[in-house]
Amino acid sequence: MSLIVQKYGGTSVADIARIKIIAEMIAAEKESGKDVVVVVSAMAGETDKLISLAHQVTDEPDDRELDMLLSSGEVVSIALLAMALNSLGYKSESFTGPQVGIITDAFHTRARIKKITADRIHKALKEDKIPVVAGFQGINEQEDITTLGRGGSDITAVALASALKADVCEIYTDVDGVYTTDPRIVQNARRLDKISYDEMLEMASLGAKVLQIRSVGFAKKYNVPLLVKSSFKEGKGTLVTMEDPEMEDVVVSGVAYSKEQSKITISGVPDRPGIAAKIFGRIAEAGLIVDMIVQNISENGLTDISFTIPREDTKKAMNLMSGLAKEIDALDVNVDDSIAKISIIGVGMRSHSGIASKMFAALAKENINIMMISTSEIKVSCVIQSKYTELAVRVLHDEFELG
Amino acid sequence: MSLIVQKYGGTSVADIARIKIIAEMIAAEKESGKDVVVVVSAMAGETDKLISLAHQVTDEPDDRELDMLLSSGEVVSIALLAMALNSLGYKSESFTGPQVGIITDAFHTRARIKKITADRIHKALKEDKIPVVAGFQGINEQEDITTLGRGGSDITAVALASALKADVCEIYTDVDGVYTTDPRIVQNARRLDKISYDEMLEMASLGAKVLQIRSVGFAKKYNVPLLVKSSFKEGKGTLVTMEDPEMEDVVVSGVAYSKEQSKITISGVPDRPGIAAKIFGRIAEAGLIVDMIVQNISENGLTDISFTIPREDTKKAMNLMSGLAKEIDALDVNVDDSIAKISIIGVGMRSHSGIASKMFAALAKENINIMMISTSEIKVSCVIQSKYTELAVRVLHDEFELG
Repeated sequence: MSLIVQKYGGTSVADIARIKIIAEMIAAEKESGKDVVVVVSAMAGETDKLISLAHQVTDEPDDRELDMLLSSGEVVSIALLAMALNSLGYKSESFTGPQVGIITDAFHTRARIKKITADRIHKALKEDKIPVVAGFQGINEQEDITTLGRGGSDITAVALASALKADVCEIYTDVDGVYTTDPRIVQNARRLDKISYDEMLEMASLGAKVLQIRSVGFAKKYNVPLLVKSSFKEGKGTLVTMEDPEMEDVVVSGVAYSKEQSKITISGVPDRPGIAAKIFGRIAEAGLIVDMIVQNISENGLTDISFTIPREDTKKAMNLMSGLAKEIDALDVNVDDSIAKISIIGVGMRSHSGIASKMFAALAKENINIMMISTSEIKVSCVIQSKYTELAVRVLHDEFELG
Repeated sequence: MSLIVQKYGGTSVADIARIKIIAEMIAAEKESGKDVVVVVSAMAGETDKLISLAHQVTDEPDDRELDMLLSSGEVVSIALLAMALNSLGYKSESFTGPQVGIITDAFHTRARIKKITADRIHKALKEDKIPVVAGFQGINEQEDITTLGRGGSDITAVALASALKADVCEIYTDVDGVYTTDPRIVQNARRLDKISYDEMLEMASLGAKVLQIRSVGFAKKYNVPLLVKSSFKEGKGTLVTMEDPEMEDVVVSGVAYSKEQSKITISGVPDRPGIAAKIFGRIAEAGLIVDMIVQNISENGLTDISFTIPREDTKKAMNLMSGLAKEIDALDVNVDDSIAKISIIGVGMRSHSGIASKMFAALAKENINIMMISTSEIKVSCVIQSKYTELAVRVLHDEFELG
């Protein structure tokens, strides 16, 4: 029998009316003869509400306790959805992350899944039940509750799909697929029928909020086909899958942007071997994720090092770097949080040249200054002032004829 | 070192300001050199909010899923309280019921604790931490989450106090102790310094809402002294403890009432041996708790059987009894939910006579009709029409000079 994992995000279970609609959708899938395992997020807004409560208690809530707190959000939505399914006449059981054996490492608030036992899911499926699993949460080896970070429900879904050898992992969200760029910014943005894992990885990491980057990485690693669909309207969605030859015909598949980073610059750093290792070692120890790194040419034995990190980690990173700056005799540390990152992505880039310069020229034509550049085989990213974000996206979408 | 278990109810953790106050209170206790284990309920109103969500999904939510849903309420409060303690500089860890090994039977929504392993609490105490435990919840042998029924947090606290051999179990609530009767009804109601377990049991079972009956039974069984105090104002509270000789000097300690029951009458029941066993066997199988039972004298081989049950179980009980009435050829089943139960309680009754008749006379003088009577060694209860409740309480409080 074919098995699918369906994941419903917060907006898909935002209220009781939505939960009932989702239950009907799941029931229809079950009726078509498939085994269905469902993963849900907390009801839209709940996680933010919980975080706000925590911050009313203290500026820096304890991470272990924050995970405990946040884990309650999904417990509400799984129970309500399982009730809705039961009331429709379908046997269903809800499970927390710990109950289905989602074992993670010990990094609270951003844990990684190490293994999934899934015994209770197998048992429920054998009993013809529909298991409804809490996304975003797991348990570490000390049996403390952990969470997987924002978007963690996608990871739960993909990891489960892989562990259960599901045929497909369907990610239901409030958009009907992956677009060439943000349709709120560019009117003629186009839904893509298909996109490769690598392209999706770049899109996700660059702020196209459809899928969480770690979930795409996971899906690629274990070759789990992802189907991104809307739970609000009918549609084919976008299939995220292995690269196939025809994809190369398109040079640039999409334009992505992210306003959710800050740039930290450590200036006047003595240009000695090992300094960069020290800086980014410290950052890594704290579990912070650095995106772009740029080091200037050294002048008088001093250099500047800039890097970008998720904006919510700015305070943590600044605390770390202020301490470190003294240790390494750097002159100053400062932060710029009015930046944006604009990127073009496409597997076709590999076989085409001049893509980057075309991008830089298009931005220059609009007097948009480029502060940092980073490239990979299939993407080019530029950090610019955030006020130019929308303009830059439109210019690049036109330049590469994506409409 | 002395060890106390403190339990804070929903109103004591109703909002962040209250949680911070509670954290200060706990910290002060810790500073005085005691080990403290804290049990908390969900924030006031949260459990009702969750139940209302469930009833928006379906009229009869699945019990297993209801337990899953409700368990989320305490997870929020334990995490926030542990955060508050950590932010004050006290090491604290929150634990769910399953995490501290609160093993229950399989009766969802009204499970009973079978055993407590408490390994994690011992470990936390050894590390000089303040464990904050979710009340009201446990885990059954199938590893499904269960809840202990309304007021279940008190049971968690008492059971933990017993398992940990605590010196005292302090129950913090919004009233400052146990009163001779409801002060909202009788102005000169008096706080009792001390009350025996048995009296408290009767008070609780009769609707004095300070303590949950099962928790008092538990406390009596394992001889855990309970101190009922207010978390809103200073005061000595009321100690619930073993009976001591001086308690017998007081004939009646209090007047209690309950409006939270319904009376179900099965009329025209063939008066055959085994019928009552059949009726109450069926009720027990469904996990419903019957309070008073009255069987009329048989006429023409037919009798009437009345009993009272918690009002929230009325629908369930009526469904059961309607089915059963056909099986046993009874004529009719009907329900009266505008009843109240009025009781006088006191260990001194054992050594005094005429207490019951004094009660009946006092009610008769006010033309209050008595529908059912039930007595125990230390209490007399009458079911009356609920509209007379307040009048009856005042009359009896005066009659037995409790002011």
